[in-house]
Amino acid sequence: MTATWEERAADKRHRIEQSIPAEWKVKSLPTADSVFDFPEKSGLLSEKEREITQSSATDLVAKLAKGELKSVDVTLAFCKRAALAHQLVNCVLEFFPEAALAQAKGLDAYFEEHKKPVGPLHGLPISLKDQLRIKGLETSMGYVSWLGKYETRDSILTALLRKAGAVFYVKTSVPQTLMVCETINNITGRTLNPRNKNWSCGGSSGGEGAMVGIRGSIIGVGTDIGGSIRVPSAFNFLYGIRPSHGRMPYGYMANSMEGQETVHSVVGPIAHSASDLRLFLTSVLSEEPWKYDSKVVPLPWRSHEEEAIRTKLQSGGLTLGFFNCDGNVLPHPPVLRGLDTVVSVLKKNGHSIVPWTPYKHDFAVDLIYGIYSADGSTDVLRDINASGEPAIPNIKDLLNPSVRKADLNDVWDVQLQKWKYQCEYLDKWRVLEEELGKELDAIIAPITPTAAIRHNQFRYYGYASVINLLDFTSVVVPVTFADKTIDVKNEEYKPLNELDALVNKEYDAEAYHGAPVAVQIIGRKLSEERTLAIAEEIGRLLGNSVTP
Amino acid sequence: MTATWEERAADKRHRIEQSIPAEWKVKSLPTADSVFDFPEKSGLLSEKEREITQSSATDLVAKLAKGELKSVDVTLAFCKRAALAHQLVNCVLEFFPEAALAQAKGLDAYFEEHKKPVGPLHGLPISLKDQLRIKGLETSMGYVSWLGKYETRDSILTALLRKAGAVFYVKTSVPQTLMVCETINNITGRTLNPRNKNWSCGGSSGGEGAMVGIRGSIIGVGTDIGGSIRVPSAFNFLYGIRPSHGRMPYGYMANSMEGQETVHSVVGPIAHSASDLRLFLTSVLSEEPWKYDSKVVPLPWRSHEEEAIRTKLQSGGLTLGFFNCDGNVLPHPPVLRGLDTVVSVLKKNGHSIVPWTPYKHDFAVDLIYGIYSADGSTDVLRDINASGEPAIPNIKDLLNPSVRKADLNDVWDVQLQKWKYQCEYLDKWRVLEEELGKELDAIIAPITPTAAIRHNQFRYYGYASVINLLDFTSVVVPVTFADKTIDVKNEEYKPLNELDALVNKEYDAEAYHGAPVAVQIIGRKLSEERTLAIAEEIGRLLGNSVTP
Repeated sequence: MTATWEERAADKRHRIEQSIPAEWKVKSLPTADSVFDFPEKSGLLSEKEREITQSSATDLVAKLAKGELKSVDVTLAFCKRAALAHQLVNCVLEFFPEAALAQAKGLDAYFEEHKKPVGPLHGLPISLKDQLRIKGLETSMGYVSWLGKYETRDSILTALLRKAGAVFYVKTSVPQTLMVCETINNITGRTLNPRNKNWSCGGSSGGEGAMVGIRGSIIGVGTDIGGSIRVPSAFNFLYGIRPSHGRMPYGYMANSMEGQETVHSVVGPIAHSASDLRLFLTSVLSEEPWKYDSKVVPLPWRSHEEEAIRTKLQSGGLTLGFFNCDGNVLPHPPVLRGLDTVVSVLKKNGHSIVPWTPYKHDFAVDLIYGIYSADGSTDVLRDINASGEPAIPNIKDLLNPSVRKADLNDVWDVQLQKWKYQCEYLDKWRVLEEELGKELDAIIAPITPTAAIRHNQFRYYGYASVINLLDFTSVVVPVTFADKTIDVKNEEYKPLNELDALVNKEYDAEAYHGAPVAVQIIGRKLSEERTLAIAEEIGRLLGNSVTP
Repeated sequence: MTATWEERAADKRHRIEQSIPAEWKVKSLPTADSVFDFPEKSGLLSEKEREITQSSATDLVAKLAKGELKSVDVTLAFCKRAALAHQLVNCVLEFFPEAALAQAKGLDAYFEEHKKPVGPLHGLPISLKDQLRIKGLETSMGYVSWLGKYETRDSILTALLRKAGAVFYVKTSVPQTLMVCETINNITGRTLNPRNKNWSCGGSSGGEGAMVGIRGSIIGVGTDIGGSIRVPSAFNFLYGIRPSHGRMPYGYMANSMEGQETVHSVVGPIAHSASDLRLFLTSVLSEEPWKYDSKVVPLPWRSHEEEAIRTKLQSGGLTLGFFNCDGNVLPHPPVLRGLDTVVSVLKKNGHSIVPWTPYKHDFAVDLIYGIYSADGSTDVLRDINASGEPAIPNIKDLLNPSVRKADLNDVWDVQLQKWKYQCEYLDKWRVLEEELGKELDAIIAPITPTAAIRHNQFRYYGYASVINLLDFTSVVVPVTFADKTIDVKNEEYKPLNELDALVNKEYDAEAYHGAPVAVQIIGRKLSEERTLAIAEEIGRLLGNSVTP
């Protein structure tokens, strides 16, 4: 094999193209900035297929479980829409509709015979970030050098989703290295935002963001070590959850910097509603992942924790912390307005909002950056250089040549600082509770300083990454869209620092007009039940939720 | 300060001596090998004090909570017995009876006024390994260089125990570095086994083992990264639990290799019964440690998990795996007999015992040794050399000059191997369950290859340390005592390897006669409730439990 990296990438692109049946090819691609409505109008989807793909996962599994829908029909609908999605926004790294339909057929046959579903996800297609392994397929993760290797086993999560009845049909695009909140690699190029091709789909689970955003998928599986589930959710007006480490199984997944445990990457779903996120989490937990993956905590879904929140909704209301600036970078006007919207609607509905003082976020941002770059990029450079491909421009910070590999004792010191910081943050939370005389149920905060960003402008990870350092649960809730008539640039703004100046200079009301705006709801470690219940209520109050 | 390390150590010894009131001093120390019965016969303890110190913690807190006992009386009894213990077996690094009695007085006054206890441990004295910080006291951890530094805050566990009503009066001895299963340091020298001064008390929580063994304490707090709770429990005929990482708060405790997170040291109790271990765990969990320490999983005590075991005891019985040799080192005859005793009594009572094949324990022992020595001993040598004291001979393996500091990427690789190994072990467990068609409730195994060992002969950590690598819950149950008339040396034995040859050569029926023998009961990660319930039942069947 003496193929150049360009040839290997071209071969992969060719294979992806070949995987799309001719009858699903779009004759003439739209030229408008937004392709968001194209699938509905393409004529490629039948009325029933449009209905299926516009549904919720919760509804679909209910119908599949009653035999009111067949998995082949649901799978075919999503395969077609995913094929469209890829042609429109370039979000696919693996597409295998034939295998998917065969799997769906098997599930339908099972249902026919046993008159019951195989599991809680019976027949539901789920899309996977190209980091989850599927036996027999490649896992490129955006590295050219990984192409041509075919997996000999599933990741644990893949296997458990399969056991729960999920159908696999597509693996979605990622940025080279995964360490970026945009999605670009040297195999397939850049993935675009369906709502505007000038905007990023986010990253690193950006293929999922775009694919779920345009409903080529109903639930997508992403991962997050610094915002990689939450940023694509935010940029595509979706819900996404970053569970705490140990809740969902990550075993046998591919990764950059495998074995790095100072800050754990976590896996979680991206979807159109909090209830679909819950469906995913409860389904995986019902398979007892802790019996397969040693890092998973033996913690079944705790309905009583959701009930605790629902009880508060009935009487007294929630108590939520709130901050709109972490002291490093002030969010753009659309994001500040989005936060105000959430706060207003909550107050109007009788909930208490209390100010939260971000504790040493500047320190935390530096600490986690040091962790990302602890090996002096040895690991990612090995995989980049193995094929001769260049590094994508977006990771130049990570590949900073002044960052040398850390000494082991220094890493231990960083780990100690991390733990101390986490405990101090918990102290702040607890002390505020003692002052208030009641529980602080969650904290409302920005997830990025911007609405869906223009390409190559993602500069500040801190709103997301500090939560990774804390290992808190975080749920992204879509709120609104940037509006040039309201979200006027503050020309008087005195920046906090150089980065803040750059980020705020880049706000352009015209360019951002219509871009999705989101917030994150932050709960303590392993508080998925409560935090999701709160996120669901906020979505309901905002009127953008598809809660059944 | 130009004091030599010898002077600094002598000063500390002098201060410990001074902390024992003259009236508690033993006029003439016994010369027999065993001092085990001495406190009862010393004449120093009143009838009531003997009764208190011979009681169980569960009984004592029940009486304290009803006002039937005063904390000053209980505290005084244990202070006196602890003072005796130190004079007999040299197990103290800090002793502060005055402060303890003042604390007890305060608790009695609280009870007098409010007619209720402050918490579940109201008034109960608890001894702490000299690794837990107490504000105002030293934490030497066996390092001369740490002497003279006085703590400005409590460890989280200290603070929560205090909140639950515990009284502190003593901190117990440890080996220099903590990385040894015997207890010797250059400050106080060697801690002896109360049952025979020629035997080790175990380590590194050896001061606790000796102190609780001779009932100078009713519950002692130890830590375990390779057997350091379990070995002292075994060598002193005590119960001890190594909870999984994340169950008990370790925050702000002193440690060697602080910040090392590849294998976590964990903290847990040593006591005379499973029910007293449970009292400790439930009391700490009732304080919600996850709100203070970020590493603690928000998992209250799950009574329903205990109930699941009790239900099995009522019908069908338990299913327990069993192995008596890990393929590396065959246990001595007393330990093999101890294991047989447990298996027989379980079978006789209707439980199923199935063979468990130890999975790659040789690989695991090597892997964890590599982790212990990953920094080429940089950290421990810094603390040893800071005072000029020599290294204790027992850590020569750890300080092996051929072991160099590991490269960070190599550590990541080790972490990946660890995770993979853990998952493979879970696979074996699950597959066996599938074959059996029922749950495998726990595994019975040796905890050391020997009964309480002679000094400087502790050579093989593997039975304990593999469980640390797996992060499984493990409870030590005392079983029997070596008996020279039954436990005859097998002169025909063909050793498995050089280490096995050495360990087995050192068996001497005469020297070990009367030495405590224990087993460990191993459960999956975070299975404290179930594993403890099983350990309790085994103790009950053996007739050595003080279950109320």
